[in-house]
Amino acid sequence: MNYPNGKRSSIQNNAPRGKKKTDFSNRGMSLEEDINVTNEYYLQAGVAVVHKKPTPVQIVQVDYPKRSAAVIKEAYFKQASTTDFNGVYRGKYIDFEAKETKNKTSFPLSNVHQHQVDHMKSVQEHGGLCFMIIRFTPLDETYLLPSSSMILYWEDQWNGGRKSIPYPYIVKEGIQIPFHYQARVNYITAIDKLYF
Amino acid sequence: MNYPNGKRSSIQNNAPRGKKKTDFSNRGMSLEEDINVTNEYYLQAGVAVVHKKPTPVQIVQVDYPKRSAAVIKEAYFKQASTTDFNGVYRGKYIDFEAKETKNKTSFPLSNVHQHQVDHMKSVQEHGGLCFMIIRFTPLDETYLLPSSSMILYWEDQWNGGRKSIPYPYIVKEGIQIPFHYQARVNYITAIDKLYF
Repeated sequence: MNYPNGKRSSIQNNAPRGKKKTDFSNRGMSLEEDINVTNEYYLQAGVAVVHKKPTPVQIVQVDYPKRSAAVIKEAYFKQASTTDFNGVYRGKYIDFEAKETKNKTSFPLSNVHQHQVDHMKSVQEHGGLCFMIIRFTPLDETYLLPSSSMILYWEDQWNGGRKSIPYPYIVKEGIQIPFHYQARVNYITAIDKLYF
Repeated sequence: MNYPNGKRSSIQNNAPRGKKKTDFSNRGMSLEEDINVTNEYYLQAGVAVVHKKPTPVQIVQVDYPKRSAAVIKEAYFKQASTTDFNGVYRGKYIDFEAKETKNKTSFPLSNVHQHQVDHMKSVQEHGGLCFMIIRFTPLDETYLLPSSSMILYWEDQWNGGRKSIPYPYIVKEGIQIPFHYQARVNYITAIDKLYF
């Protein structure tokens, strides 16, 4: 999560980002926002309980003004040690990272970090359902790719392999995620096809 | 997570708080720190994958100095909308909140918030294992209490019931969590007894 202009609209705005439900066009909303909207719908509809983890921040200095809330005056973004989303579906642990790319022909592995891959491997070993949600923005296509399929390419890059996952591989090994009016990234349908 | 003196020791210190392994006495470490150490051990030993969620922060202003990392100049603590810890154990989703109290005879329900109770109910409905870890600091006793048992008292307080959970109830309905040299709050043993 970056704040390119260094500002959030208002500190009073404590609503989850996914609550912005006025814009129903698929264009213009980030993948993360679409997934937040989807998770909110899943929660309300009793489908699944999935949340985005807060952005990890290293807090250095906090002021405590009289009669007002504590103000963080100095803090730094930390690299996340896990993936962005996790939760429960049908009793199973689910865990995923979401990334969008402007590429049309492949997904660059530079979007993923080693510690995230380590985390995904651990989750797999413990029987969790672990995957990536990858959106090819220019194609307006979004896929669920099992982390195990991603990791094959990840490992191969250290053995002289390519630094990106070809689009046709993702189409073949992944499941395309349909758009749904309320569940904008309706990834549960892909989970059902793949794991249940 | 509060920083009573408004300072962290150093911004360079990116190590998880649980990594402080020099102090092996049980006294003086917070329950949260003990659980972080435990989770790190579980991860390394291949027992389970459980992480504390980052403290949610509302970011208002960020500076981007040349040639250095972005600095958050104004931010506020937000109330967490879920519980503090979640992860995967034997393929199952586990989710819990950890609280310590200075009381000896009961656990005050003011330690818990309505939105956390709502979250716990959702997790239960979806088949996740959901519980509280409660430490009675003066007794040096720590219990795993299923969220369903906690919620009985939670709901009852709105019907004229008491505002705290009696210690004997927690002893009876919960499982005492043993201290283990590496897994300082060895809650997995309690999960095994209760759910598997």
